[in-house]
Amino acid sequence: MSDIEIAQQNEQSEIKPIQTIAAQIGLGQHDIEQYGEYKAKVKLAALDQRTLPQEHKLILVTSINPTPAGEGKSTVTIGLGDALNRLNKQTIIALREPSLGPVMGIKGGATGGGYAQVVPMEDINLHFTGDMHALTSANNTLAALIDNHIQQGNELHIDQRRITWKRALDINDRALRNVVIGLGGPFQGVPREDGFNITVASELMAILCLATSITDLKARIARIVIGDNDQKQPVTVADLKVQGAITMLLKDALKPNLVQTLEHTPTFIHGGPFANIAHGCNSILATTAALKLADYTVTEAGFGADLGAEKFLDIKVPQLGKHPDAVVLVATIRALKYNGGVALADLKTENVAALTAGFVNLKRHIKNMQQYGLPVTVSINHFVSDTAAEVTALQNLCAELNVQAIDTKVWANGGAGGIDLANAVLASMQTTVDYRPLYDNQASITDKVTTIVQKIYGGQAVEFSTKAKRQMQTFVANGWDKLPICMAKTQYSFSDDPKQLGAPTDFTITIREFVPDLGAGFLVALTGNVLTMPGLPKKPAALNMDVAADGTITGLF
Amino acid sequence: MSDIEIAQQNEQSEIKPIQTIAAQIGLGQHDIEQYGEYKAKVKLAALDQRTLPQEHKLILVTSINPTPAGEGKSTVTIGLGDALNRLNKQTIIALREPSLGPVMGIKGGATGGGYAQVVPMEDINLHFTGDMHALTSANNTLAALIDNHIQQGNELHIDQRRITWKRALDINDRALRNVVIGLGGPFQGVPREDGFNITVASELMAILCLATSITDLKARIARIVIGDNDQKQPVTVADLKVQGAITMLLKDALKPNLVQTLEHTPTFIHGGPFANIAHGCNSILATTAALKLADYTVTEAGFGADLGAEKFLDIKVPQLGKHPDAVVLVATIRALKYNGGVALADLKTENVAALTAGFVNLKRHIKNMQQYGLPVTVSINHFVSDTAAEVTALQNLCAELNVQAIDTKVWANGGAGGIDLANAVLASMQTTVDYRPLYDNQASITDKVTTIVQKIYGGQAVEFSTKAKRQMQTFVANGWDKLPICMAKTQYSFSDDPKQLGAPTDFTITIREFVPDLGAGFLVALTGNVLTMPGLPKKPAALNMDVAADGTITGLF
Repeated sequence: MSDIEIAQQNEQSEIKPIQTIAAQIGLGQHDIEQYGEYKAKVKLAALDQRTLPQEHKLILVTSINPTPAGEGKSTVTIGLGDALNRLNKQTIIALREPSLGPVMGIKGGATGGGYAQVVPMEDINLHFTGDMHALTSANNTLAALIDNHIQQGNELHIDQRRITWKRALDINDRALRNVVIGLGGPFQGVPREDGFNITVASELMAILCLATSITDLKARIARIVIGDNDQKQPVTVADLKVQGAITMLLKDALKPNLVQTLEHTPTFIHGGPFANIAHGCNSILATTAALKLADYTVTEAGFGADLGAEKFLDIKVPQLGKHPDAVVLVATIRALKYNGGVALADLKTENVAALTAGFVNLKRHIKNMQQYGLPVTVSINHFVSDTAAEVTALQNLCAELNVQAIDTKVWANGGAGGIDLANAVLASMQTTVDYRPLYDNQASITDKVTTIVQKIYGGQAVEFSTKAKRQMQTFVANGWDKLPICMAKTQYSFSDDPKQLGAPTDFTITIREFVPDLGAGFLVALTGNVLTMPGLPKKPAALNMDVAADGTITGLF
Repeated sequence: MSDIEIAQQNEQSEIKPIQTIAAQIGLGQHDIEQYGEYKAKVKLAALDQRTLPQEHKLILVTSINPTPAGEGKSTVTIGLGDALNRLNKQTIIALREPSLGPVMGIKGGATGGGYAQVVPMEDINLHFTGDMHALTSANNTLAALIDNHIQQGNELHIDQRRITWKRALDINDRALRNVVIGLGGPFQGVPREDGFNITVASELMAILCLATSITDLKARIARIVIGDNDQKQPVTVADLKVQGAITMLLKDALKPNLVQTLEHTPTFIHGGPFANIAHGCNSILATTAALKLADYTVTEAGFGADLGAEKFLDIKVPQLGKHPDAVVLVATIRALKYNGGVALADLKTENVAALTAGFVNLKRHIKNMQQYGLPVTVSINHFVSDTAAEVTALQNLCAELNVQAIDTKVWANGGAGGIDLANAVLASMQTTVDYRPLYDNQASITDKVTTIVQKIYGGQAVEFSTKAKRQMQTFVANGWDKLPICMAKTQYSFSDDPKQLGAPTDFTITIREFVPDLGAGFLVALTGNVLTMPGLPKKPAALNMDVAADGTITGLF
């Protein structure tokens, strides 16, 4: 059965009213706002009233460098949460929201798979509770207000050649990457170059995920730099005096969304910043809500541990005020073989030698997480093509590092397939964690970037383009240099070259340009070409999607 | 107090849970899907099961040619519904959804005013239940699929110079009226001219409002013409094979939204096609739901009766299968004085002569509605600056036409201020209606347009541009000429010149171009320059909007 068929079968027979799920974690009728029968937003006031329980363990799920198909991080996260609840450890899962663009493109749904899914999967994958749409709307309202300001006299002397605020759509639409707007004469605006990001790559998405309250959200939005004026000085949203209106459009989107897994584990799905241009984790408010309302929180970060986990630890953790108590590194036999040089088409054939060669990738990720002082457990996300010899080989390789590697079968068996993993993770949390941040924000930008490149990527040096060097001087002058760094890099390699698999060394990373995301509170360092608006493939998933007369959806994977 | 203050005060003290409102009209817990505590969507299956009651009267509220500020049609519609319920006539109101673009621009909220409002007004004016966002999303997914089709080999040979499907945003953004997309080289798409409509001007919005089921919605979407191929033959959504995916994105948006007035009258707010480029009425499904669930339905149509009511009667009624039983024509003393030549700044000064001169506008609208065989009642939407002499003069002028003109004070007094109007409308429905459609769809396009221009606008002749003439030949060849006509014209005048107020005669209307909306099922006839993407004013309403730490909104009028 396909993921959607499993989800639909389950939704018909077993899904519980969302009030029931809310009640499981102590939220009453008046603490939530229902969106249909199976989705709810949690009121911020209800969360403010609650304090952290004695036990509030945070488990971060991350992965090795993925193959193009992904390694099943969400699936393992969901299965692990279900398994912990089966072990009577009160657990909440905290995930990111799927973006509609990739859903219509190549990826299909993004709500786990098999028997480790969150439901209602169709709603979550489509419009859900409207957070993405609110962000799109807020992003483009700001853009319209900027162009209108220029058209109506340009009191702030905004330089239309230096506007960095782009428009956004939650669509994969390559034709909107580079556009010229304002054509048609003096009544149709001022012509200028512009472009569209996919909504999840908008700074507003990063802001929503880091904000701790409406007041904080508004303060962050006010700080957004939309471009320069004709004196090359930054122009902010506060200068435009529209932070109130933009915040207003996001006031409901800020509330965490509550749903459930197929096994009824309460799950917050809230926010989903791109893990390349932004920090790739779900919202601070959702993670905090989970920490407050359960003893165990299982959450994930985007792409491999070099991107998602590094940013989770160096950007999100300081804001969250809580570091993980354990890390789960998801690996697949096939991805390790891919990292060991096997072609995508041959990944189903047993190949212990390639697996062993590719293990260097996993090994570096393990060492990286241990640098932070965190206990690591490896989850082998099981595929039917995995052989016993391969699994054993991988477990032995991990054992040499004193790390447990657990064969995890949550896709096929739900929480039951994750019991061993859950027990291993629980055991790993018995020792006290001596958490050590990677870098100090007070260090220089050069030092911070170099630390990430050398200590996490395993690279040798960093080169800064002329533009990047000039920008760093400006940032120092503006007092922006004490912010954390958000690296924008390919997810397929530790280096900035997607073809360098395994664990490359001796490479240099080039920082082409910085993007100062003052609202989010980090400096994005761009390496290589970072795509902030994906395209659709030759045969988009949309071609297979349909809806029957009674509203039943097919083709959503 | 401002509208939002009145609404907020009331929401805190008196708004009822939406289940209570649903129960009032016989809808149970399982017939609705809640969106928060005070909004719900009604499941289509729940409506399919119900049949029309014996008494199912339909009252259409329309108006004279408006001033730029609008004449309070929604306010009167809401007040009339409340008044009918006060008279123990079971009544449901059916309105259009506000578009966020104008809300952020000059207009502020669009949910009635004073004590004749629908609530929760903030939600309805902002993201509501996500219908607009779903439409934006569906519109732009289709656009991305078109450009992707071309990029990936263009199997259908779409001529990129002749794509008529535009992108859309629910924003007032003049800079997006004319754009060039696909710039940046061969990996970023095929460069071409494009433009954005405001979402409510998208054909998808018109389709959503005319569709009677998911199956009908999908069939209409399949028929949409997105442009021509290199043989100048129309290319449809069915050719692209994506009607399933686009319909999927709209499956929830198709369900009518239920809210309440300040006096708890159940109100469907669903769909809101632009009344210039489209037909300007709320959805067939919402109107049908109201007709099925109450004895009296009060609904409205956009702009003046020359645009909104004409289209309601000639486009919506045949699809709805039910004509109005009565028409309410909303007029204001100040708008009649404006039509009588008084400047906007002087409208507060008593001026019976100007009122009498401007009455020709109201008179023509009355005659127009009577042409259809419908009983007409005039509602004088009361403003504090109206004098007794002016009101009496207007009532006398109407009396000469055997039409009652009722001074209506619903803004100040809610339903209590609409009792006289409700009684007059009830009385007007005592006589049998001999409903006569304006034109036969089997007539030629020229005849249909000429009939509207001569019989409704009071014009003399129609001129068709060379392009329009060529299009009419193509439409005949394609078999598209038996569709109704959707006129796109300024709302400020019976003519196509917004400066010709009152009741101009002897004018000629020029049809510049047609837009064949095959999915909606009508041919749009464009007169003059029709703006399908508004702009923001010098001081947008957004500048005054704010949200407090607890989520309370201010500045939304």
